[in-house]
Amino acid sequence: MDLGVSKNLEPLLAAVKAFMAEEIAPVEHDYIHEIGVGDRWQFTDRQTEIMESLKDKAKAKGLWNFFLTEGEHGSGLNTVEYAYLAEEMGKSHIAAEVFNCAAPDTGNMEVLHKYGTEAQKEQWLKPLLNGEIRSAYAMTEPGVASSDATNISTQAVLDGDEWVINGEKHYISGAGDPRCKIMIVMVKTDPDAATHVQQSQILVPMDTPGVENLRPMNVFSMDDAPHGHMHQRYTDVRVPKDNIILGPGRGFEISQGRLGPGRIHHCMRAIGAAEKALQLMCERAVSRTAFGKPLARLGGNIDIVANARMDIEQARLLTLKTAWMMDNVDPKEARVWISMIKTAVPNVSIRIVDQAIQMFGATGVSQDTPLAAMYMGQRTLRLADGPDEVHRMVVGRNEFRKYMDTKPVNAIRRHG
Amino acid sequence: MDLGVSKNLEPLLAAVKAFMAEEIAPVEHDYIHEIGVGDRWQFTDRQTEIMESLKDKAKAKGLWNFFLTEGEHGSGLNTVEYAYLAEEMGKSHIAAEVFNCAAPDTGNMEVLHKYGTEAQKEQWLKPLLNGEIRSAYAMTEPGVASSDATNISTQAVLDGDEWVINGEKHYISGAGDPRCKIMIVMVKTDPDAATHVQQSQILVPMDTPGVENLRPMNVFSMDDAPHGHMHQRYTDVRVPKDNIILGPGRGFEISQGRLGPGRIHHCMRAIGAAEKALQLMCERAVSRTAFGKPLARLGGNIDIVANARMDIEQARLLTLKTAWMMDNVDPKEARVWISMIKTAVPNVSIRIVDQAIQMFGATGVSQDTPLAAMYMGQRTLRLADGPDEVHRMVVGRNEFRKYMDTKPVNAIRRHG
Amino acid sequence: MDLGVSKNLEPLLAAVKAFMAEEIAPVEHDYIHEIGVGDRWQFTDRQTEIMESLKDKAKAKGLWNFFLTEGEHGSGLNTVEYAYLAEEMGKSHIAAEVFNCAAPDTGNMEVLHKYGTEAQKEQWLKPLLNGEIRSAYAMTEPGVASSDATNISTQAVLDGDEWVINGEKHYISGAGDPRCKIMIVMVKTDPDAATHVQQSQILVPMDTPGVENLRPMNVFSMDDAPHGHMHQRYTDVRVPKDNIILGPGRGFEISQGRLGPGRIHHCMRAIGAAEKALQLMCERAVSRTAFGKPLARLGGNIDIVANARMDIEQARLLTLKTAWMMDNVDPKEARVWISMIKTAVPNVSIRIVDQAIQMFGATGVSQDTPLAAMYMGQRTLRLADGPDEVHRMVVGRNEFRKYMDTKPVNAIRRHG
Amino acid sequence: MDLGVSKNLEPLLAAVKAFMAEEIAPVEHDYIHEIGVGDRWQFTDRQTEIMESLKDKAKAKGLWNFFLTEGEHGSGLNTVEYAYLAEEMGKSHIAAEVFNCAAPDTGNMEVLHKYGTEAQKEQWLKPLLNGEIRSAYAMTEPGVASSDATNISTQAVLDGDEWVINGEKHYISGAGDPRCKIMIVMVKTDPDAATHVQQSQILVPMDTPGVENLRPMNVFSMDDAPHGHMHQRYTDVRVPKDNIILGPGRGFEISQGRLGPGRIHHCMRAIGAAEKALQLMCERAVSRTAFGKPLARLGGNIDIVANARMDIEQARLLTLKTAWMMDNVDPKEARVWISMIKTAVPNVSIRIVDQAIQMFGATGVSQDTPLAAMYMGQRTLRLADGPDEVHRMVVGRNEFRKYMDTKPVNAIRRHG
Repeated sequence: MDLGVSKNLEPLLAAVKAFMAEEIAPVEHDYIHEIGVGDRWQFTDRQTEIMESLKDKAKAKGLWNFFLTEGEHGSGLNTVEYAYLAEEMGKSHIAAEVFNCAAPDTGNMEVLHKYGTEAQKEQWLKPLLNGEIRSAYAMTEPGVASSDATNISTQAVLDGDEWVINGEKHYISGAGDPRCKIMIVMVKTDPDAATHVQQSQILVPMDTPGVENLRPMNVFSMDDAPHGHMHQRYTDVRVPKDNIILGPGRGFEISQGRLGPGRIHHCMRAIGAAEKALQLMCERAVSRTAFGKPLARLGGNIDIVANARMDIEQARLLTLKTAWMMDNVDPKEARVWISMIKTAVPNVSIRIVDQAIQMFGATGVSQDTPLAAMYMGQRTLRLADGPDEVHRMVVGRNEFRKYMDTKPVNAIRRHG
Repeated sequence: MDLGVSKNLEPLLAAVKAFMAEEIAPVEHDYIHEIGVGDRWQFTDRQTEIMESLKDKAKAKGLWNFFLTEGEHGSGLNTVEYAYLAEEMGKSHIAAEVFNCAAPDTGNMEVLHKYGTEAQKEQWLKPLLNGEIRSAYAMTEPGVASSDATNISTQAVLDGDEWVINGEKHYISGAGDPRCKIMIVMVKTDPDAATHVQQSQILVPMDTPGVENLRPMNVFSMDDAPHGHMHQRYTDVRVPKDNIILGPGRGFEISQGRLGPGRIHHCMRAIGAAEKALQLMCERAVSRTAFGKPLARLGGNIDIVANARMDIEQARLLTLKTAWMMDNVDPKEARVWISMIKTAVPNVSIRIVDQAIQMFGATGVSQDTPLAAMYMGQRTLRLADGPDEVHRMVVGRNEFRKYMDTKPVNAIRRHG
Repeated sequence: MDLGVSKNLEPLLAAVKAFMAEEIAPVEHDYIHEIGVGDRWQFTDRQTEIMESLKDKAKAKGLWNFFLTEGEHGSGLNTVEYAYLAEEMGKSHIAAEVFNCAAPDTGNMEVLHKYGTEAQKEQWLKPLLNGEIRSAYAMTEPGVASSDATNISTQAVLDGDEWVINGEKHYISGAGDPRCKIMIVMVKTDPDAATHVQQSQILVPMDTPGVENLRPMNVFSMDDAPHGHMHQRYTDVRVPKDNIILGPGRGFEISQGRLGPGRIHHCMRAIGAAEKALQLMCERAVSRTAFGKPLARLGGNIDIVANARMDIEQARLLTLKTAWMMDNVDPKEARVWISMIKTAVPNVSIRIVDQAIQMFGATGVSQDTPLAAMYMGQRTLRLADGPDEVHRMVVGRNEFRKYMDTKPVNAIRRHG
Repeated sequence: MDLGVSKNLEPLLAAVKAFMAEEIAPVEHDYIHEIGVGDRWQFTDRQTEIMESLKDKAKAKGLWNFFLTEGEHGSGLNTVEYAYLAEEMGKSHIAAEVFNCAAPDTGNMEVLHKYGTEAQKEQWLKPLLNGEIRSAYAMTEPGVASSDATNISTQAVLDGDEWVINGEKHYISGAGDPRCKIMIVMVKTDPDAATHVQQSQILVPMDTPGVENLRPMNVFSMDDAPHGHMHQRYTDVRVPKDNIILGPGRGFEISQGRLGPGRIHHCMRAIGAAEKALQLMCERAVSRTAFGKPLARLGGNIDIVANARMDIEQARLLTLKTAWMMDNVDPKEARVWISMIKTAVPNVSIRIVDQAIQMFGATGVSQDTPLAAMYMGQRTLRLADGPDEVHRMVVGRNEFRKYMDTKPVNAIRRHG
């Protein structure tokens, strides 16, 4: 169970770190600043110029599509190796996109790669792999507890050669991006079928008539423009019968395959965010003075930093082991590990970001450090792709199951 | 030590609750919605209409200026009594202003009431008491740890009959409001004096030449427009010599008097926010279903709710006792209690709001519940008016001091 | 809602403090040391001499039976007043007994006082009130979850004029004491009755044939000799029909009445223990040096002390309010408050004792400070008289109940 | 960085598990029961018979001295491999001794193996490796903060060919064991030397005149007889000059070498204890019923179990990585990792044991489950071999050091 940086990965990891320091860091701030300029839901010319030129450079250096581990377009990396790269990307607000490794595109590309028809691949996977378009994934619904996938109520009904879709979805991340051309929508195709074969996943081009962007949803007060977390309504949205992925009733199955790697990527980026927050916290602590001492020597700050280091190391190892499980054991077993990191890791990253905020005082919640945005992002991760509560249930049940059929060891014995 | 609702308070508390339910609740949502309309830094006509008509009604019913406990304009309430009213106001985003009990006006009015000259009172206290203008308090500076007040670097130099002020302040809450006409600015007037008599507080009308709003500071990504948390620069800002409050070198002393009640009010409103979050959490838990059960019956949700109830009750009692101490003991002793609630209470309110968010899922971080805004407000309270760390230092030192001069009781004895 | 020290209480509280400092403190250590001498399940002559002489002095000064608030033998104190005295007693291992205010005698005396017949009072209440005998309360059973009182399986069957009791109880505190003469035993008298009227409480003299002390139960490795937490077996134990208290089927009802005050007393003593631990911690911190500094100035120790102070103040106020509720509101409402303190307070006292242990290093777990014994006592309190989990359930359910029948306020509204 | 079970280890790990299940488990309870029989500070014949026969069997199967990784007597295992075995041993109270892998013998054998002269090895290492005698390590002193090793005050003065030792040590684990024949004592040999070369380590046979067992120290109320945690006084204790290990002034250096592996072993056994507690908790939860449901389905129990699983996995991985660092990197770097696990792991194991206790109710603190003893052992681990506070200081300082000499990245930038 090798969880270290492999020989294979070493040069790649170094190249990514160098690219981030030399190419991304100098322009990242400019890029973010541009979000507030003009129509917030369009990219400014300056933004487009920054991002496209970074993408071109990254692609030219082969720092591209790392996430896709297998197949002809695959990077040949295993999940442990990719995890180290994802961690680095997690330290920047824009790096994942620069390397064409940003959610939700990565998950969508994986779905198309694994389950798509040749025609679907040609039409959507190819431009996604090239970084020419972006995509979205419409899953969560406003009226029901979407953590329980059987609650999905958006319906797709077959009418001749077309699926007719009606319903509402919200928190469709990236659906505000003008470059977003395609969505995978989770729908209910057969309400009368057995619980886990009622759902399907369907490709819906963004410009299909009947797809309506109702409003951007906020994450705290952040709308993440122009990426956006959209609330959409579907009114008699018609797509060709062939737009279904893998076939009717396979939606739940696809989710399971899609969400695993996505959650690991999220967690590794969260580790990166936590490392970044710890770095900022330490820099602040050694350089800022109050009551005649650097903050590093006041009160429990050294304990906070020490605990942060321990928590990060543990969270990273758990994520790396989960990545290893993903590659090496039965998916059912790996799923429990994914639920573990999906609960454990964001709680670590939030806590550390929160403590870094405290170390920065008012500046910590301001627009002058990345901490506030990091907090909002990490906090949302405790809800996205299943809330903590659901993942804990998965882990807890798995644990109890081990003892269901066995007689207890004789734990209790009377001592005189 | 009566911490209950007094006979005197009963009808007033009932009237405030009724006013909030009947007058404020029906229009609050409209008011908040208007913030996003047009120029976010101006009030819309609809907003002005809502707020001014609510204020008129409240004033007409005598539900006005409760916070001012003494003097001819005073409500005659003691701090314990006011605390119960502040808690109610804390459940709404706009109620404190409706009853003319909103920060930072309350603190500023108290300062003017206690320490202002007759002329200062006539010019500024009167319109503030009438709710005709609003005010700001400029304390925190961007470059230094303002939690240590001796770090203040904005300077005021006497030049003939005028103070000339140069420096920068940020997080000046309310300074974005077009109705904000006057600021109290904490400045350094005598850098060579003893540490705690270097500072003074000076009245600076908002439209004084040289006062420049550089930008609004964010709280997370919320700019709180049009209220705003402004970053200002002062360039040769000139105000009359008489604009100083109480005299040169008294700034620190005024702070001490000003911040005490302000912190209690903050804490009582925080209790109100926590109660509101608990209410929302419970309503969600009993009405939302997942995996075939109401959330109330899933996992540890009942424990979360029970702990929230216990935490709120304890935090409220601590705040009420602190209010009582404020009214009944030496201010030095009361100050330690204020540091206790200033640390303990926001940590409770944040935790409960955070758990309510989790119970609501993605909706909890959205604009569809007040929870996200409550979270951002409560989290900032851990930094505003002194970060937790400084208040803990006050409490801890006070505790150690009890044992400094005494010989330890013989804690350690050898048993055979 | 006066939660302060009343005028009435002031002299009494001063007298108790003085008695503890002047009479108990000088001999307490000797008393505890004697437990290890000779037969650990008998009192040594020295122990008897110390305790009886302390009791005589306390009784002579009227510092006696404070706990009994009403009736001819009552102290005339209300529960808030008694709470302050109980807190003081909680700082010493032996004080409660000295003032004849020790559990489980206090609860048993209350039961006899409220529900006993004249004959029962004459035979058992009188010597208990005089401090001539001690008593026990047999409730918990080894094989079932006794937190759910309906699980009780010890049976009492009426045979002519006698109840015949068979079953097992454990953790019968005080049943090892040679002076313990009487037990109240919770039994099932009518297994076919409605759930809460199956149980009865019966007086069983300790020397009744068939009562067998199987072994002392440990609390961690502490057997608390000669007090003891006994495991007993009842084999055809026969007591007169009249030994039943209040009548068959009233057992659950008596429990409810008995446990309320008992839990408040426990909690107030726990506050005393927490105060004692905080005192020891501070004395250690200011006097012990490591790495060239007193512990008080190392790492987060000042934060630990500050948090301890805040937690204690909040826990005390919650307990005092609960005491006030006990005296002033409907018992059903008070019961929820009792569940709150029963959960909240021991968790505070354990945490503080645990942190004090850490401040003392190895000495903290040794026999050279009272901390280890305090830890074991406080930890057990999270289980005794209902585990945290059951009390949280009571509090949580009460909270949810408020929203069961009401329609939710419209928490969720869509903002554009 | 392979943290898995190696091919090499697989059969050994299986053999240890089998031996524990088949040989140790059936007699462990008997062995523990015997501690209470007769003179608690002697082994009963039954105890000796059980332990010696287990040791003979283990030795015969080659399940012996795993801990010694190198040298002619070494097991050939690396530290990662040994860690897995230590975890298994941590699930039983007696297994470590059975495989001759019990502290403090392991640390003492390592010291003698690495630093001992041939004569010292012949006289003491050989019988220790054979399991014929046991040993102790005298480090902690009653009067000073021993976490700061420079505080050591026991003195050894050279008088001709002999060292003359005077002073007191306490918490000398194992010094009560009648089979304990040799001690390594940390002494100050040159109070005037530089801080870290004042100390030496000296071999002191247990029966040397002047060595006096003052009393057993308790861990909570547990005296761990006949192993014991002794308090000793040294009065003119004379040992030959050659009994010094490695030479005068090398004591601190030896400690550093000795404590590293010892702490890893402690942590791995702590993981084993945590796994055992989680197992007991789950068995209880699925088999015990209250309020009509198994505990597993009540309140937050499933969350507690899920969190325990996540915490254990993270703590184990951190410990395995530390073991790997021990074998593969510079000892200075490894030391920071050791401080991490020494803080992080016992806090995890205590929490889980504590929660298991709560799940068992009163039985959890009794002598009828191993939980109470596990709690006392794990809690003490937060103090033994350096309290959490000191290890956190090591980790925190190491973190700050990274930023001491570097200029901060420009974390703060102003956004308009």
